[in-house]
Amino acid sequence: MQKTSDQPLDMAIVGAGPAGLTAAIYAARSGLMVAVFESAGPGGKAALTDRIDNYPGFPSGASGFELMNDFYQQAVNVGAQFFFEEVRDVSLEGDVKKVRTPERELLARTVVVASGARQRALDIPGEAAFQGRGVSQCATCDAPFFKEKRVVVIGGKNAALEEAAYLTRFASRVTLVHRREEFRASPAAVAEVRQNPKIDLRLNCIPKSIVGNDKVTGVEVENRLDGSIELVPCEGVFVYIGTQGGANFAAAGLEIDSSGYIKTDASMGTNIPGVYAAGDIRTTVLRQVATAVGDGAVAAVEAERYLRKK
Amino acid sequence: MQKTSDQPLDMAIVGAGPAGLTAAIYAARSGLMVAVFESAGPGGKAALTDRIDNYPGFPSGASGFELMNDFYQQAVNVGAQFFFEEVRDVSLEGDVKKVRTPERELLARTVVVASGARQRALDIPGEAAFQGRGVSQCATCDAPFFKEKRVVVIGGKNAALEEAAYLTRFASRVTLVHRREEFRASPAAVAEVRQNPKIDLRLNCIPKSIVGNDKVTGVEVENRLDGSIELVPCEGVFVYIGTQGGANFAAAGLEIDSSGYIKTDASMGTNIPGVYAAGDIRTTVLRQVATAVGDGAVAAVEAERYLRKK
Repeated sequence: MQKTSDQPLDMAIVGAGPAGLTAAIYAARSGLMVAVFESAGPGGKAALTDRIDNYPGFPSGASGFELMNDFYQQAVNVGAQFFFEEVRDVSLEGDVKKVRTPERELLARTVVVASGARQRALDIPGEAAFQGRGVSQCATCDAPFFKEKRVVVIGGKNAALEEAAYLTRFASRVTLVHRREEFRASPAAVAEVRQNPKIDLRLNCIPKSIVGNDKVTGVEVENRLDGSIELVPCEGVFVYIGTQGGANFAAAGLEIDSSGYIKTDASMGTNIPGVYAAGDIRTTVLRQVATAVGDGAVAAVEAERYLRKK
Repeated sequence: MQKTSDQPLDMAIVGAGPAGLTAAIYAARSGLMVAVFESAGPGGKAALTDRIDNYPGFPSGASGFELMNDFYQQAVNVGAQFFFEEVRDVSLEGDVKKVRTPERELLARTVVVASGARQRALDIPGEAAFQGRGVSQCATCDAPFFKEKRVVVIGGKNAALEEAAYLTRFASRVTLVHRREEFRASPAAVAEVRQNPKIDLRLNCIPKSIVGNDKVTGVEVENRLDGSIELVPCEGVFVYIGTQGGANFAAAGLEIDSSGYIKTDASMGTNIPGVYAAGDIRTTVLRQVATAVGDGAVAAVEAERYLRKK
């Protein structure tokens, strides 16, 4: 293991998705010494998105990969340093924080946690194969691609019900598949879904596989009560069975909400001085590239103020 | 006057800066009927900015005008309708809101207020002429252009003091000009400025003119106590004598803070149901294109949820 320096950097950023890259652009442009850690490539989930139509500035849409590569180049241009290494451990208390990867241990006076949220997967045949070819985890992003088409939504909590209702703006038919008899969601969301004539319910049903050729053509669903199998024909499948936030940061002392997201104030500050959270990993009402960018800018500017005041 | 329709639209957006344009992109893409009102051209203050280096996605920087035109095209592409007319009056209470311009009166079920903040001007010779050629209202945006240069900051409240301290990261010398003997700012901000060896103070001093040739070369300052005139040589002038927020929206029932900005929750909701505020006009810690974009996306998605629940 290599100790990069005994002198702490100004900022360590955990995660190089849109929030982390924006924090890096702002902080490095402010003259801070910034290190960004990322276990995969630059861009996070956004880099895996075929086409992003709602990030402002790109009237013809943008390839997620290319857009995120531009974010990355912009951060490199202003002097942010990148380590494509997995953060294994962080120590956040006190004036000097510590970030540890298999290759090094690095000291920093502020930390921006921007490691994103992982959507839980069904882990059934076809789910990974048809990702981006019918399978989606974001109705706000992808619903317009399913105008007058049939979609299946899988899940039984507020997020699934909300997105099913939203999808009826576009889809000709929405089938909501849930493994239990009852939803675990707010009465308002349940009422909205039950009353919507464009939504069919499949309760007590478990998705077994997502089928198709080049693109999705249907979802195979098993009824738990009688064991019967139904093939629900559709062009789109939206999976909303929960997300995993920054639960692993709870061990480092960060306050998290019941879904595992990090709690912040309007300045992206966490409960630990000098530690900020930005993007999908924090408790927020919307998770988009556009919102991650706003979060990242605020976190960087607030961290700079914090350092200046020290 | 023309009444566009008796049928209310889904959303009226007041202001076509980055926040309003992003709200338009998100809302129209969600299938909402959206009208955007703007008294000048698309893009607001950002369109007048020569070069924007910190909006993620543009590694070589972007012309403010071209970037904002791309935002505008993107909103037009998804179906937002634009009225380049000044909003004279709004009525926000109740289920159907009303927006009035000299040309028409339009009904809408939700309103997004995104009309920006106006930075107060000194109104002295040279200020307008050297705008973008040395005169700036945003250190976060423009400070890196003044590396190892001399800058003058004008103002005596927290914003001016904060930005003066921030500018010492870049400028070789910062002169803070304030008309009074005492600052009206937090003790911490005052202490920071008084202790910083790179900051010179000119108290009881009034800027009389900004001088230069092609670019700024200095600020002429009058001492109120003895009437003497000093030419402070500099390459940059940052004006921070206060901003004007959405004070005119207070009359329509919106809660505003002591600086005239509209108060919102984390969902950009105001105190009036169905009315949202986004971008520079709301109470927030940072005013940038990046943050306006996040605000606009949240406001649109929350307004869509509100409409769906009605």
